[in-house]
Amino acid sequence: MRQPPGRAQRRGGGERKPREERWSELIEVATDVFYAKGYDAASLQDIADRLGMLKGSLYYYIQSKEDLLYDVIKAVHEEGLANIESLAAGEGDALERLRNVIIGHIEHECRNLTKTAVFLHELQALSPERQAEIIGDEHAYRRVFVDLLEAGQQAGQIRAEVNPKLAALSILGSVNWVYRWFRTGGEFTPHQIGEQFADQALRGVATPEALARLQPRPRLDDAREPVKL
Amino acid sequence: MRQPPGRAQRRGGGERKPREERWSELIEVATDVFYAKGYDAASLQDIADRLGMLKGSLYYYIQSKEDLLYDVIKAVHEEGLANIESLAAGEGDALERLRNVIIGHIEHECRNLTKTAVFLHELQALSPERQAEIIGDEHAYRRVFVDLLEAGQQAGQIRAEVNPKLAALSILGSVNWVYRWFRTGGEFTPHQIGEQFADQALRGVATPEALARLQPRPRLDDAREPVKL
Repeated sequence: MRQPPGRAQRRGGGERKPREERWSELIEVATDVFYAKGYDAASLQDIADRLGMLKGSLYYYIQSKEDLLYDVIKAVHEEGLANIESLAAGEGDALERLRNVIIGHIEHECRNLTKTAVFLHELQALSPERQAEIIGDEHAYRRVFVDLLEAGQQAGQIRAEVNPKLAALSILGSVNWVYRWFRTGGEFTPHQIGEQFADQALRGVATPEALARLQPRPRLDDAREPVKL
Repeated sequence: MRQPPGRAQRRGGGERKPREERWSELIEVATDVFYAKGYDAASLQDIADRLGMLKGSLYYYIQSKEDLLYDVIKAVHEEGLANIESLAAGEGDALERLRNVIIGHIEHECRNLTKTAVFLHELQALSPERQAEIIGDEHAYRRVFVDLLEAGQQAGQIRAEVNPKLAALSILGSVNWVYRWFRTGGEFTPHQIGEQFADQALRGVATPEALARLQPRPRLDDAREPVKL
């Protein structure tokens, strides 16, 4: 949700702040329109209307509708990845960091439902080259989970027979699926969801020794306070 | 993938077999076209072209493009649900049946990648009424998992603090995500994926007593034969 480097320079100096604000607003509105109508059905005219701009003025920022989807998806991907990378590099052993990554990713996703849905539904509308540029050869999100799982195996916290790539895909599936059913103000808070999902994921891969050291988790209906690690 | 009851009667008797075959072919081709172009971008003309039919002849079977999506999605949903319901009602205790459901669902999904993708991507293109009619008030797939988890809790195989609904959603997410990354002939067979996913899911919710009775799973690269339960 920021102006990509290069564009400001390309367009020359002056009134930089308003243009950056305008850019953020454009990305925000494009995300909403792609979510509500779907990328195929959405038009640049819809987006211009929502911004109170002439359609022609959009070409000051982008060259095509696909450019806009690219910028939307790149922004979502970078934000989400920065979030889990910082948690993965944080305090604690591999299992504790895996737990923080799972909870933090679910909380981030629940705060960004629209963006997440556009990212997961419309990525394939980009050209294969642009998809590859954003996601990378080895999917960047998966790499964060695989690295933690491998670190946990080296530390004897994760069972040797667990295939780290499959385990990463299993955990990523469960956490990425949340946007499909989570409702703000619904039965569970993002933190409660994160706590139980992390608990299941850790127990699913842990060695008996690591399992014995995991804190028991109270029942959800007993939890007056979010459970701390 | 069968002619819905009512249509044959409505249209009158005679040459029933060819019409049923034609209907199956129509559903098959519509699934492929919705997958390749996306529902919004796909047209009845595309589907008629692929079938070598005049577009007008399609109106013998359906009234609109949404009718066709409804029939496609209903068929996918019913097939997948029948598969896991029969496994959930099969042999074994709750944990064994949960394991069979997870493995069987992943194998079914990997055999039906295109159908699964259309179901998961395009369900929201149906009217809310039609979505509700197909999926049910309480999502039918989730209900199968919740029932098994609750049975496992009553039998003391699943930890009391596990919320069955969240656990079902976590497991469903991991298994439903597979169609996004699985490639036929790729690194893992559907059975290998199912084995590890089931192992992680069961360990994630099992009581210590049930955990002690789970068979250890060999490493993937040691597994010459699919591991039997």
